[in-house]
Amino acid sequence: MLISDLGEFGLIKRLKDILGSREIGHDCAALKFGDRYLLMTTDALVEGVHFLKRYPPEAVGWKAVSVNVSDIIAGGGNPRWLLVSLILPNIEASYVERLYEGIKKACEFYKCEVVGGNVSKGRETVIDVFAVGESERPLRRDGAKPGDSLFVSGTLGDSRAGLELLLENRKDYKPHELALIERHLRPTARIDYVKHLVKYASCAVDISDGLVADARHVASMSGVRIDIDSKKLPLSKELKMFCEERGKDPVQYALFGGEDYQILFTHPKERWNPFLDMTEIGNVSEGSGVYVDGKEVSGGYSHF
Amino acid sequence: MLISDLGEFGLIKRLKDILGSREIGHDCAALKFGDRYLLMTTDALVEGVHFLKRYPPEAVGWKAVSVNVSDIIAGGGNPRWLLVSLILPNIEASYVERLYEGIKKACEFYKCEVVGGNVSKGRETVIDVFAVGESERPLRRDGAKPGDSLFVSGTLGDSRAGLELLLENRKDYKPHELALIERHLRPTARIDYVKHLVKYASCAVDISDGLVADARHVASMSGVRIDIDSKKLPLSKELKMFCEERGKDPVQYALFGGEDYQILFTHPKERWNPFLDMTEIGNVSEGSGVYVDGKEVSGGYSHF
Repeated sequence: MLISDLGEFGLIKRLKDILGSREIGHDCAALKFGDRYLLMTTDALVEGVHFLKRYPPEAVGWKAVSVNVSDIIAGGGNPRWLLVSLILPNIEASYVERLYEGIKKACEFYKCEVVGGNVSKGRETVIDVFAVGESERPLRRDGAKPGDSLFVSGTLGDSRAGLELLLENRKDYKPHELALIERHLRPTARIDYVKHLVKYASCAVDISDGLVADARHVASMSGVRIDIDSKKLPLSKELKMFCEERGKDPVQYALFGGEDYQILFTHPKERWNPFLDMTEIGNVSEGSGVYVDGKEVSGGYSHF
Repeated sequence: MLISDLGEFGLIKRLKDILGSREIGHDCAALKFGDRYLLMTTDALVEGVHFLKRYPPEAVGWKAVSVNVSDIIAGGGNPRWLLVSLILPNIEASYVERLYEGIKKACEFYKCEVVGGNVSKGRETVIDVFAVGESERPLRRDGAKPGDSLFVSGTLGDSRAGLELLLENRKDYKPHELALIERHLRPTARIDYVKHLVKYASCAVDISDGLVADARHVASMSGVRIDIDSKKLPLSKELKMFCEERGKDPVQYALFGGEDYQILFTHPKERWNPFLDMTEIGNVSEGSGVYVDGKEVSGGYSHF
């Protein structure tokens, strides 16, 4: 049986069974060390799969760090140390240096440090980052409780629209299109949410696969039903302009877009914090599955 | 300028300069956390570069763990947690499962645990492991002192001979050849040396690039001269048989072979431990460079 027959999650389940590990399946592993917790995660960007050669290498470096930091944040911690493992064909050294400029900028922004790494030869460029963070109270995907409200940071769907624009490979883009492209190329992990999440969240996950797909992980791991109200989804004015021009529905982008790197989290309604750009988009109840406007949603990208 | 013009170490130096990090350049990073030290390292096996598709996947999984554990040992610690990042083309799922069986066996042997990972699509198989260990007293490459003796664990050169035999891709191998192949495919990181190293070593490094190349790292980072006595190099009877049959010099294999994953370390002569398979092969003095039998050696693999 080929990997494609099993699917990514089918394969991960099999590997998890072989190892018999309980940590696998969360955004990051949380291990007690002394009186604190270490958070650990890894995520790779592969050329031709996650980025194209023509993308600015500084942006690729920034993103490679951000997607890992995003997992640490969803795990309820701050990033501390990174290791960067590069697989490189024989390309221009200046490309690798620009990649590292982006990594450095991201480290300064998120207040973490590259402490080591590895360079190997290979046929395609891979930037594989390992991040270690620290937490007083790790958050898991399995903590959502009936009665909680469902919240999301920032706006949703921008990254997917930005990707579509990028793939058009035009010479000229309008300002709102450039803003969307920027959100795909250079996502910002929500480091400003760490304190709030650690204090109040019962559950958190970063939105990398798309709102519905990631909500489904929460619902199944927490053993709850999640209801999303599509009228409440936070949409940027740039995404609305993009969709208006093309006769598309921005709600579909917000529900299934992916790579937003916003945080989806749950806690009681009254913990809403006016100083953060958080939006209540639904609620948690007993049962199972993810419902949008009362209808169960099982698919994902197929809606596009 | 292409990466090949700069060389691996030239590239790493440039990246280190961009980041301004002091940790990079050692076998692993050592970070104080609470009252102990965390050791972190990463090393990747790339298909077509570090292994071939026809190698038993269990062996590849075992080796991917062992090469990382070896760095943690050289850093003066025991491994605790691993993350496994896989880049996979659409291959048979059973291949990945067998890879994981090897990873699991290695974790049981070294007493560490896979706590997470990642799976990405790609054109070639990469097993990228990230290891976190723990140490009371981290060892560095820069601690060798004039007056120390130079020691090595186990025997040297076997892995290189095993690789040459493997590449012949014969149907039948003799028992001593199979033993050498096994040492290339399934190296054992010297976990039995951790206590001795932490207690006595002034400096340690694992032999992955070859004895002379790794001794050169120690000499340049410690600011000392290293003398190796070729008559003292520990050679296995299997390597001697292999070399006799082919009219080759086993000393060349021991000096330049690489991938032995033995530990090269320094401490006063009187700390020699009869319960370990350690051999005194030379000494450390003031000066610079690596000398074999009194002659400075600058090259590496070119001796083959």
